[in-house]
Amino acid sequence: MPQYYILFLFFLIFFSSSSHASVQDFCVADLKGPDGPAGYPCKSPANVTVSDFVFSGLAKGGNTTNIIKAAVTPAFVAQFPGVNGLGLSMARLDLAPGGVIPFHTHPGASEILVVTRGHITAGFVSSASTVYLETLKKGDVMVFPQGLLHFQVNAAKIHSSAFVSFSSASPGLQILDFALFANNLPSALVGQTTFLDLAQIKKLKGVLGGTG
Amino acid sequence: MPQYYILFLFFLIFFSSSSHASVQDFCVADLKGPDGPAGYPCKSPANVTVSDFVFSGLAKGGNTTNIIKAAVTPAFVAQFPGVNGLGLSMARLDLAPGGVIPFHTHPGASEILVVTRGHITAGFVSSASTVYLETLKKGDVMVFPQGLLHFQVNAAKIHSSAFVSFSSASPGLQILDFALFANNLPSALVGQTTFLDLAQIKKLKGVLGGTG
Amino acid sequence: MPQYYILFLFFLIFFSSSSHASVQDFCVADLKGPDGPAGYPCKSPANVTVSDFVFSGLAKGGNTTNIIKAAVTPAFVAQFPGVNGLGLSMARLDLAPGGVIPFHTHPGASEILVVTRGHITAGFVSSASTVYLETLKKGDVMVFPQGLLHFQVNAAKIHSSAFVSFSSASPGLQILDFALFANNLPSALVGQTTFLDLAQIKKLKGVLGGTG
Amino acid sequence: MPQYYILFLFFLIFFSSSSHASVQDFCVADLKGPDGPAGYPCKSPANVTVSDFVFSGLAKGGNTTNIIKAAVTPAFVAQFPGVNGLGLSMARLDLAPGGVIPFHTHPGASEILVVTRGHITAGFVSSASTVYLETLKKGDVMVFPQGLLHFQVNAAKIHSSAFVSFSSASPGLQILDFALFANNLPSALVGQTTFLDLAQIKKLKGVLGGTG
Amino acid sequence: MPQYYILFLFFLIFFSSSSHASVQDFCVADLKGPDGPAGYPCKSPANVTVSDFVFSGLAKGGNTTNIIKAAVTPAFVAQFPGVNGLGLSMARLDLAPGGVIPFHTHPGASEILVVTRGHITAGFVSSASTVYLETLKKGDVMVFPQGLLHFQVNAAKIHSSAFVSFSSASPGLQILDFALFANNLPSALVGQTTFLDLAQIKKLKGVLGGTG
Amino acid sequence: MPQYYILFLFFLIFFSSSSHASVQDFCVADLKGPDGPAGYPCKSPANVTVSDFVFSGLAKGGNTTNIIKAAVTPAFVAQFPGVNGLGLSMARLDLAPGGVIPFHTHPGASEILVVTRGHITAGFVSSASTVYLETLKKGDVMVFPQGLLHFQVNAAKIHSSAFVSFSSASPGLQILDFALFANNLPSALVGQTTFLDLAQIKKLKGVLGGTG
Repeated sequence: MPQYYILFLFFLIFFSSSSHASVQDFCVADLKGPDGPAGYPCKSPANVTVSDFVFSGLAKGGNTTNIIKAAVTPAFVAQFPGVNGLGLSMARLDLAPGGVIPFHTHPGASEILVVTRGHITAGFVSSASTVYLETLKKGDVMVFPQGLLHFQVNAAKIHSSAFVSFSSASPGLQILDFALFANNLPSALVGQTTFLDLAQIKKLKGVLGGTG
Repeated sequence: MPQYYILFLFFLIFFSSSSHASVQDFCVADLKGPDGPAGYPCKSPANVTVSDFVFSGLAKGGNTTNIIKAAVTPAFVAQFPGVNGLGLSMARLDLAPGGVIPFHTHPGASEILVVTRGHITAGFVSSASTVYLETLKKGDVMVFPQGLLHFQVNAAKIHSSAFVSFSSASPGLQILDFALFANNLPSALVGQTTFLDLAQIKKLKGVLGGTG
Repeated sequence: MPQYYILFLFFLIFFSSSSHASVQDFCVADLKGPDGPAGYPCKSPANVTVSDFVFSGLAKGGNTTNIIKAAVTPAFVAQFPGVNGLGLSMARLDLAPGGVIPFHTHPGASEILVVTRGHITAGFVSSASTVYLETLKKGDVMVFPQGLLHFQVNAAKIHSSAFVSFSSASPGLQILDFALFANNLPSALVGQTTFLDLAQIKKLKGVLGGTG
Repeated sequence: MPQYYILFLFFLIFFSSSSHASVQDFCVADLKGPDGPAGYPCKSPANVTVSDFVFSGLAKGGNTTNIIKAAVTPAFVAQFPGVNGLGLSMARLDLAPGGVIPFHTHPGASEILVVTRGHITAGFVSSASTVYLETLKKGDVMVFPQGLLHFQVNAAKIHSSAFVSFSSASPGLQILDFALFANNLPSALVGQTTFLDLAQIKKLKGVLGGTG
Repeated sequence: MPQYYILFLFFLIFFSSSSHASVQDFCVADLKGPDGPAGYPCKSPANVTVSDFVFSGLAKGGNTTNIIKAAVTPAFVAQFPGVNGLGLSMARLDLAPGGVIPFHTHPGASEILVVTRGHITAGFVSSASTVYLETLKKGDVMVFPQGLLHFQVNAAKIHSSAFVSFSSASPGLQILDFALFANNLPSALVGQTTFLDLAQIKKLKGVLGGTG
Repeated sequence: MPQYYILFLFFLIFFSSSSHASVQDFCVADLKGPDGPAGYPCKSPANVTVSDFVFSGLAKGGNTTNIIKAAVTPAFVAQFPGVNGLGLSMARLDLAPGGVIPFHTHPGASEILVVTRGHITAGFVSSASTVYLETLKKGDVMVFPQGLLHFQVNAAKIHSSAFVSFSSASPGLQILDFALFANNLPSALVGQTTFLDLAQIKKLKGVLGGTG
């Protein structure tokens, strides 16, 4: 079998000369490095282990003992560095009875949702202001095109949950109420640009910690 | 100069054999064709003229005698087929005194704005709910990252105007009030997913022609 | 409220002039149209309903009464036209006790998997021939970088299942055994290019319906 | 209202855990960092202010008291770090009477131009050597597909100006005369590869500071 | 072996249900279909054969008995439909003694060249007007970044040839002299936008068949 | 000629103010910098010379005195930093009589091959398990779509060679036998996921240095 031994040596040589080139198989995020438009710099492949590609943070639902009776647990690149540069990420939704994930957008990704427990009423609105609304059962899948306003509401009397996946490692998340009411944007300006009544604005600013 | 004549012939032959390959210099939209994920099919290059690359619809401002005292005039691929596949488009904003372009997003593009008349107060809100707000003078430029909620308000006592450009031939436009109130999304569901009071919702649904 | 009525009219006019531009919010596949490098042509938005964005085919697991005791149920663009152009899709894995999803690649997408029942041992191999192998519990997530060989094996005594998402509406699926043994590639050539023994090749060609 | 207070706390917690993930809303260039194929590394979001998204350098035209009687003022990523990673940028053209922006290309972007003062004759040439030429009035828009040779000439007796936008934060700019004559490319080689007469080449090399 | 037979059946079923999804492995151009921004529509996979992926048109060099003593033979999507959507294409360069491929750009692709016979002097010019010039021997490789002006000259006393590959199925080809002189762009305008003397322009227009 | 001198000065000023913006003409890899999802950071343009864009490592074939009687010599970004960010790279194949490049994939790129000496039998297999197989003569070109299994075999009695180009600067290379047999993946698991007999697996693990 000396022939085989030569084969073995040949490939060792081949791989050592091309080893850098294979780095781009994956690019586990080095979260200490500076972010860039395409994601984080890569952790050295020599230090990458299978644990970089596995994430256990979605095994349990988030705490839903809050006013929206719901929780979103992200597995974006900041939580799960293995997705860096791969064009996808995940999150878990938990909705207690009466729970709501309020209107929000993901500025940088489309989303696909699969119900794993209970029933969820989900909807999105297009640029043409058409509503696409459905009550999903366990195992049903729904897709939300990039950047459009959408929401999820528990439609069951029990705790409902879902997994969602995104077409980006860093999809972003802009919750409408927080964008409007949880900052220092002057109430008058919010009124001018939303047609909401000032009393309504001030009430929600109070709730969400906004000022102005 | 017979030598030159051969050169001429050579190139004629060369170009005729490669003529198809050069089509992708541009791809003027054939708006009758079915749209696709990357845009419209290309008009035959033989029928393309300079008028396909020129658009005069932004020379005059839109009609601002309406309640928002403002107008948006688009030069997206649907109005200006020459931008198909080129990754950019434009629009013109006109704001009469007191005019407002209310909160909206472009799901598929970033935006860059330059003020050409008057003063405009513009702002956007990030996923972290931080407000980036500035009053822009004539010639000032501001950029709005993809998918984030933003608005423009006339900050002058005179008519103000601006040109905006987008990083897509088809940026989309989702106006917040229309997404929430100008359709048949049930008021109770709007309330659940926005925390707005029912009275407020019904009032704006009335104004914007929404039902439910 | 005549003012508001004008607002309403204004927006109607605005939307009708820009209605084409908003098509690219989404591009539900017209599967009868010719496919292109970026996906299928779009179904007319006028005919799109919420059912285009909802898929119920993953609610039940596939039939696992076969030799691999496993099933893959896809929700790619061909089954779920709503994902066309959105850069994502899904599938469901079902593994009876002893079930195996054999070595395969997705030539056009990365994959993210979440276990929804049982335990699954999953692994992928990098270009440097390093193995990344883990036994995943319910709720664990694992990511498989684009184009790399990977597999999933039931690690529980009960039926296990998982949802997987892809970074493309059309990820492709190349199962190693089928690529090598389920076609007419001459056995001698398979031997030359895999170093497998001829007897082994002929045995698997027999099983998988290959010839030559 | 203690319930609301819990909502507030909930979201604070939620946002603090996902704060990294929202970075990719934008990526203001840290110009001191090393450039990469997708742009510059991101400035820390904590240090980003609205001034990063606003640029006032286009408010005034460039100095046109030069031989081309024209000026190009760029707002590319190097001047305007806020556009980093957003796929767009701008510039301002100023043309005194008789002014000319000579033949040039942008290797990395398409361009869209809007005339803001005077008249401009603009043209581009396709791979098939067809000329697309138009004299544009104030408010007219023209698009120049990526990488093609184009020019702009003042067609008015007054100062003319325009804003141009690009489909890249770093479009590049290759001015034909400078590529041919403003460097040390040997005159004989320029002659061989352009068919220009040697006297012509040496004359323009002299003017533009070229050698060889 | 009945078990194996079941495996066989299982996979048949699996593949027939997912067969559409695998189309995007490749997308051989149907050149009769309308081109789009991402390329041509796909030929039906049922009609695709290996001959769609093989091209023999580069086996022989083009005719170099012309004034530039050179020939470019393209294998772009228009000649070689198999590259549609794959992001690459090729061409062959042949240069008789004294042969020249004059200054040109590819608006839509970078290029990589390998010399297969003789010696070739190749150069490109950056946006900063720096010249990158080298005389290449057989087997040497040189890369030309997207959109930049470049040329190739035979540096041997024998026929030289090279293969070039592009990062697009449709790279485009704009030959400088043809863009300037082989069309109806008025000579005065060429002069204004290139600083060339009118006599020089008229001479080359005469040679290349230009008018005006 | 003082006028011309002013032109010269004008452009100097123009270029110095926009010099950063033109960096993105190219981005020669600084291989010491951390890799990222889009490639390596750019070497400072001031230090870039023509030698960064030229690679001589493909001029000679690799050593084929090994068991596969073949060699692959890469010019990926790790060997040839000039291709960083340009979306292409190359390699050279050498096959002695009886030589074989065994089944492999490039997870991140499509490939185009041109035969430069001898005859090569090449094939790839689609997701639908169809074989596309051809014996190529000198000058013949064949394309291999991204991520699909393919191989090359010498079909001549003499040494054959080819140049291959890729649609990525870092295409990756996963050789099937090495992925399966040259690591510590337990033999039983290889058997379960490939249907290969244990004896076959252990034999090839022995040859290729695998364990387990």
